Amino acid sequence: MKYLRFLADGMEKYGILDGNEITEIQGSIFENPAVTDKRYNLSHVRLLAPCKPGKVVAVGLNYADHVKEFSGRDIPENPVIFIKLPHTVIGPDDSIILPEISNRVDYEAEFAVVIKKYCKNIEPEQASEYILGATCLNDVTARDIQKSDGQWTRGKNYETFCPIGPYIVTGLDYTKLDVKLILNGQVKQHGDTSMHIFKTDYLISFISKVIPLEPGDVVTTGTPEGVGPMKPGDVVEVEIEGIGRLTNHVKQADC
Amino acid sequence: MKYLRFLADGMEKYGILDGNEITEIQGSIFENPAVTDKRYNLSHVRLLAPCKPGKVVAVGLNYADHVKEFSGRDIPENPVIFIKLPHTVIGPDDSIILPEISNRVDYEAEFAVVIKKYCKNIEPEQASEYILGATCLNDVTARDIQKSDGQWTRGKNYETFCPIGPYIVTGLDYTKLDVKLILNGQVKQHGDTSMHIFKTDYLISFISKVIPLEPGDVVTTGTPEGVGPMKPGDVVEVEIEGIGRLTNHVKQADC
Repeated sequence: MKYLRFLADGMEKYGILDGNEITEIQGSIFENPAVTDKRYNLSHVRLLAPCKPGKVVAVGLNYADHVKEFSGRDIPENPVIFIKLPHTVIGPDDSIILPEISNRVDYEAEFAVVIKKYCKNIEPEQASEYILGATCLNDVTARDIQKSDGQWTRGKNYETFCPIGPYIVTGLDYTKLDVKLILNGQVKQHGDTSMHIFKTDYLISFISKVIPLEPGDVVTTGTPEGVGPMKPGDVVEVEIEGIGRLTNHVKQADC
Repeated sequence: MKYLRFLADGMEKYGILDGNEITEIQGSIFENPAVTDKRYNLSHVRLLAPCKPGKVVAVGLNYADHVKEFSGRDIPENPVIFIKLPHTVIGPDDSIILPEISNRVDYEAEFAVVIKKYCKNIEPEQASEYILGATCLNDVTARDIQKSDGQWTRGKNYETFCPIGPYIVTGLDYTKLDVKLILNGQVKQHGDTSMHIFKTDYLISFISKVIPLEPGDVVTTGTPEGVGPMKPGDVVEVEIEGIGRLTNHVKQADC
């Protein structure tokens, strides 16, 4: 099942996608929504981020090759987590705005999951019960600020720095999915979730023992090697096997 | 004016404190609340955290003496920010729970301000318009986890790790206020907001250029030297001139 959120008739709606046809649904996507008889063509609506997370809990350094390119450090003993706040979230086809203060803003293609129900203190074996589905996420990062601050919060939290979408896809096997970053048509990152140092179920459990997760919250699982900068006019896409392609445009902030 | 939030008659209420007498108010503390004719004695109610922040934006390393004790590093060029999420917030007299996973959980006495209205891209000269008032905050930190992770998010975000209160006090001059941490009756930290590397108004402006602040959000301004560990049974208090004393008890998590 592919859930999506979209604008049609001037209103925000949720739907299920089949081919190019959207069936509108009513009620919460977290609690058996009801199918309506309203249909829309995918090309006639504007897609929004498929959920509205209260928080995005992100994991750094979860591919060995990226650990090496980023820091030359050893593989971490535990997942390293950080927060992206809701104001960073944008949807498919929205613009990533490069803040004037940064000289280098990078893409980071990531496999992410959307939480289905309140999740606290769970074990990895229980994680799948708490996951609604999977989506693509671009963990946009002001690399210069991330490095000069040492702490990652500021460099990861400028507005528009968290594109999510296009769909939340249920029922996938998360353990081996191809993850690609495509910049202006050229593949720049190419990894696979089987390369994760910490697996998705382990991450959900680990995070739930610190930070309770709520329906709609997003957990994103780290990026493979090949991160690099974006410039105004670029088209940046995160493509994940079985999910689809999240496309965004890059703009300079107005001065 | 001293605003507070409390439980009475089994309900959550807001009030204004004068001496030991609380006058209940109706409406939002952010928009000229109306005074009612209901009165309560301070000693007959249970105090809650005085606001319900959507996020606490915290600043690390904002006193030169603490920078030295923590890291031996140079004074940072910019404020170093991190997030404490809402699940960490507790009120006066609530218990700080030491998670089993940590071998060292520290107190950090901090002067904090509560945001009055939506605040984005402002200059320091405008900051006072966006501050409702000031309060005491204990930036509880699992020091071992903070150090081993490198990133501070996990070590700062266990449940109960953000005591706030007892009141939100309006009209103070924030530039010179005594800040103390008292552990079992003994003063362990003693600083003054005039020792801040980055002043409160500058911090609000700096943060607002990255993260939009909402009414009820809290910005906390860093801790002076003298941080140290707590153990079960301890009574830990943050006392700030003109605000009052925030008291919490320390307990071990149930295994």
